[in-house]
Amino acid sequence: MNATFIEPFAEAVKSTLAMMASIELTQQPQQDKADSVARGELSSVIGMVSPQLCGSMAITFDKPLSLAMMQNMLGETHGEINADVADMIGEMTNIICGSAKAALSEQGYEFNMATPVVITGENHVIHHHVEGPSTITTFISPKGNAYLEVCFDK
Amino acid sequence: MNATFIEPFAEAVKSTLAMMASIELTQQPQQDKADSVARGELSSVIGMVSPQLCGSMAITFDKPLSLAMMQNMLGETHGEINADVADMIGEMTNIICGSAKAALSEQGYEFNMATPVVITGENHVIHHHVEGPSTITTFISPKGNAYLEVCFDK
Repeated sequence: MNATFIEPFAEAVKSTLAMMASIELTQQPQQDKADSVARGELSSVIGMVSPQLCGSMAITFDKPLSLAMMQNMLGETHGEINADVADMIGEMTNIICGSAKAALSEQGYEFNMATPVVITGENHVIHHHVEGPSTITTFISPKGNAYLEVCFDK
Repeated sequence: MNATFIEPFAEAVKSTLAMMASIELTQQPQQDKADSVARGELSSVIGMVSPQLCGSMAITFDKPLSLAMMQNMLGETHGEINADVADMIGEMTNIICGSAKAALSEQGYEFNMATPVVITGENHVIHHHVEGPSTITTFISPKGNAYLEVCFDK
């Protein structure tokens, strides 16, 4: 079931970065999470809940990609990840998840979104606490990679 | 409003660690988040959603405290934070949030919980993406500190 749900989120990541930050991402095939650990410097997590569904989405960004998003979206040059960059990523997470929510709603799946939480720090790793295997989707760009993981428990 | 909601979560952190891991935490007064950045090695985030409420809870644990929890709860000695430790923290997060959910339900506030996401990595920092100021509550124990942040958007 998780695999079915990932595509609307993957489409939302690509369309949001293209539209808002003029960054074209190339989506790679899904990989088993066990074989593919993303160590990022900036991640964002958002919870999703409905009577039907319960899950979380996490996106991890390479540092140069997140700084390029700041430059392209806001015209701001930042050399390091700071509170402003974290804030932008939190807002992007709302937009990405909202876009996937709209797409899934058309398929009859409804959920509400929690508030995003952004994590900064070199080489951190995200672990989803759900039953069963999970997959990770990598997006490649000239500025760096992004990694998407979407897990639903039911 | 956020301040009102924090106490049931703080009580749940203390009672869960006391009951399940025999670790007594001493709660410190709430501090403005701006003045108090917790840099942890292990954090857990869980989203909370209802028609009334939308928020997230994050708990950051010092490494020695998380390893002591493994020892006391499961009798397992781990020298480093690994997938087993992350899994235990994900489960503890479910229990803590579920306990606070039950307490808030008695006060007329209902919400559903998303799935927990656990973050590992030295010196990472958690940023809640919500409107308005947020506070952080520190818990001290002989094994290390825990840091709780609960934010609701409405």
